[in-house]
Amino acid sequence: MSNNEKKLVEQITSMDEDFARWYTDIVKKADLIDYSSVKGCMIIRPYGYAIWEHIQRLLDTRFKETGHENIYMPLFIPESLLNKEKEHVEGFAPEVAWVTMGGSEHLTERLCVRPTSEVLFCEHYANIIRSYRDLPKLYNQWCSVVRWEKTTRPFLRSREFLWQEGHTMHATAKEAKAETLQMLDVYADFFEQQLSIPVLKGQKTDKEKFAGAVATYTVEALMHDGKALQGGTSHYFGDGFARAFDIRYLDSDNQLKYCHQTSWGVSTRIIGGIIMTHGDDSGLVLPPAVAPIQVVIIPVQQHKAGVLEAAEALRARLAGRYRVSMDTTDNSPGWKFAEYEMKGVPLRLEIGPRDIEADRCVLVRRDNRQKLTVPLAELEAVVSEQLEALRVALYEKAKENRRARTYTAHTLDEVKSIAAEKAGYIKAMWCGESACEETLKAAADISSRCIPFGESPIGDSCVCCGSPAKKLVYWGKAY
Amino acid sequence: MSNNEKKLVEQITSMDEDFARWYTDIVKKADLIDYSSVKGCMIIRPYGYAIWEHIQRLLDTRFKETGHENIYMPLFIPESLLNKEKEHVEGFAPEVAWVTMGGSEHLTERLCVRPTSEVLFCEHYANIIRSYRDLPKLYNQWCSVVRWEKTTRPFLRSREFLWQEGHTMHATAKEAKAETLQMLDVYADFFEQQLSIPVLKGQKTDKEKFAGAVATYTVEALMHDGKALQGGTSHYFGDGFARAFDIRYLDSDNQLKYCHQTSWGVSTRIIGGIIMTHGDDSGLVLPPAVAPIQVVIIPVQQHKAGVLEAAEALRARLAGRYRVSMDTTDNSPGWKFAEYEMKGVPLRLEIGPRDIEADRCVLVRRDNRQKLTVPLAELEAVVSEQLEALRVALYEKAKENRRARTYTAHTLDEVKSIAAEKAGYIKAMWCGESACEETLKAAADISSRCIPFGESPIGDSCVCCGSPAKKLVYWGKAY
Repeated sequence: MSNNEKKLVEQITSMDEDFARWYTDIVKKADLIDYSSVKGCMIIRPYGYAIWEHIQRLLDTRFKETGHENIYMPLFIPESLLNKEKEHVEGFAPEVAWVTMGGSEHLTERLCVRPTSEVLFCEHYANIIRSYRDLPKLYNQWCSVVRWEKTTRPFLRSREFLWQEGHTMHATAKEAKAETLQMLDVYADFFEQQLSIPVLKGQKTDKEKFAGAVATYTVEALMHDGKALQGGTSHYFGDGFARAFDIRYLDSDNQLKYCHQTSWGVSTRIIGGIIMTHGDDSGLVLPPAVAPIQVVIIPVQQHKAGVLEAAEALRARLAGRYRVSMDTTDNSPGWKFAEYEMKGVPLRLEIGPRDIEADRCVLVRRDNRQKLTVPLAELEAVVSEQLEALRVALYEKAKENRRARTYTAHTLDEVKSIAAEKAGYIKAMWCGESACEETLKAAADISSRCIPFGESPIGDSCVCCGSPAKKLVYWGKAY
Repeated sequence: MSNNEKKLVEQITSMDEDFARWYTDIVKKADLIDYSSVKGCMIIRPYGYAIWEHIQRLLDTRFKETGHENIYMPLFIPESLLNKEKEHVEGFAPEVAWVTMGGSEHLTERLCVRPTSEVLFCEHYANIIRSYRDLPKLYNQWCSVVRWEKTTRPFLRSREFLWQEGHTMHATAKEAKAETLQMLDVYADFFEQQLSIPVLKGQKTDKEKFAGAVATYTVEALMHDGKALQGGTSHYFGDGFARAFDIRYLDSDNQLKYCHQTSWGVSTRIIGGIIMTHGDDSGLVLPPAVAPIQVVIIPVQQHKAGVLEAAEALRARLAGRYRVSMDTTDNSPGWKFAEYEMKGVPLRLEIGPRDIEADRCVLVRRDNRQKLTVPLAELEAVVSEQLEALRVALYEKAKENRRARTYTAHTLDEVKSIAAEKAGYIKAMWCGESACEETLKAAADISSRCIPFGESPIGDSCVCCGSPAKKLVYWGKAY
């Protein structure tokens, strides 16, 4: 991490004053992104990209452990191929970028830059699946996709973003449904255990589901400001695409049958979720699993004899086990403290002449700024323990925020007044009709986030129309 | 690796009969790629992509060890930005894909899909470099790029390909030149040590250099058929782009100075190079460092008592140290042997009832089909030794091919007759004029591959025009 760009760690906008500005301040000042002349797209700078590399590595390991293989599909989709599945094309065509020229020639058929790759995978699967022996096919792709958004925000909504898209084919509906839920669990566990972000698992309503899917499942996270973020989705397609693309296999009973399909994805918007879940007025706060630097060592009074050597000894002891950085530039310790707080480094170790004399160093946790005096003999143990304590504390704090910001409504008026006065989830019963979703959108500017798994009904009539309702829905404003 | 696709390992075209068809047979039958309705682009299938993942991992480690950081730049380049450096745009504009519509709207300025990202990096560097303290900037990007080629071949020339592009900025010309050569050495060492591909290091002539570069350096490999493949290139830009983009820094002497720049890249065409350097009439032959499966275990007479258990014991012993696969499908051993030979798996272990009785297994090397009887007690040692022996043998074989296919010419007639009758490098002196390169192209259909480092002149006059010549050039036909 180069620390050489001469830049002051200025005060950022406070979260309470203007959360949106606080967010854009952080993405810039923590060196996560830069803007360019490519409107609506972002440059992911080394510090931001390193977070993404850790996300990739951790998820890729989980995907491979569950039997998935990586593949690379073309960037382009011919218009006729995109048109093959009706609901899908209706969902995506309005927001794709079109290539119409190659060199100086006009193309006979225009190509869209992939917004998602279902149709490419389907064409390939139709080509390689023949027999029940070929199933399941469990493929994943890491790539960038393009959606021509009108308003954009770094990580949350940009015209190009990085993501992974899993696309799997199965012999039976049952197997495909199990895959859909398995991958939802993989996401949920990753969010909760490694990102310290509590998530709500549930199903999307038909209005909010993926274009062409039978069912869309989601992990939803609640940000610090009470707005929801869809963290990852997992779709069950049934055999809809298989019929459109004629993807059939000869089963062991000698019958030709259609395959059943899933897809699932998470993107760089996860980074936006990390910022808005854990960040504070001093900057980013990173969960240790994805922090490019887990421990930063700051020598104090480094010009004095023995200080740099002692700091280096700390670094050397930790380097094999953690991602450690040491800052020996001539910036002041105070400047450095602010800089690494802005960058969200989980632990800071300070060591100066008096510490050396006492055989100790000082450890400061990024989340609560708790200062600990650490006897040098216990260094590794305390670092390990504090990283784990921070991971758990971030999770608990986010969970408490969600608890405090989850409201219950039994009437439309209640929904309206909560939505007007508070920010957070509103739990309310729903009849299942899209019309009521639209009424709530119009009345309170909220959308259905999900029908959560395993929660009991809180009433028996729709909060909107009063008809009998069996579905509990979490509603909210979303990024 | 799924082995379930019901597919026969048919005879492939022999190399001597038709090298081009042999190549396309291999990329298909070894499950490296598939075609799609996206003309000129390829699907990189799991087995092919796994090779790329190993290439990425090994190179990325080398890049990070030499101080480079990864970054992600936008996929698109506005036309006005591409136009900023004149030579560069002249080189690339004829072969780019243009996005002219976003959703249903015509863009006011068309965007090209990046063919390379110099101009994006320059715009960013102009934005973030202020002082000598900000230098050097050592960035790299893994991504896909698009060049609208007319004729395409999998891995070797396709409209979209995967690559990495390093882009660095330095305070002085000297530093930038050193970086250019350092990265050339990184490539050369990777090719020779990990891919077992001997390379020639040298400089490109002005005619063959990168659009906008002051100097282009290359690692050139000679394929089995005697055609050359440019394996990787490293460019020194001087301050040309820095002047066009106004990238200046305040030096410690308080003077504003232009930065000096490099870029360097390798792509998925490396996979084509591996195929054409090491492959044979039974299929792919993979160097162990990038083989998705390094050792495959084939139980023989697997229905007999104890065979599967013994095979599994072999697998378990090797699994922690190597990428091991075991094939227990009901295909015949002969079918399996052919399948894993096609896929280029370096070592095959066979174990059957008689082997178990004698406390041994059989090891077969992919390159020379040498069979070794291995006492089980020595398993790990022999596997390690044979993987290394194969790595060295592949390198030596390729080097011998290059030696046998390197010719020397002192007159234009000699060049013509060698080019007509043989395939390989032709070493000949050159005056330095592009006109002579064009004459040789017209007369013998060859291009200059490079001016090699550290080789002595073989004469003192240009093989083409007879003028005084100080430069020895390797000429040849190239992929």
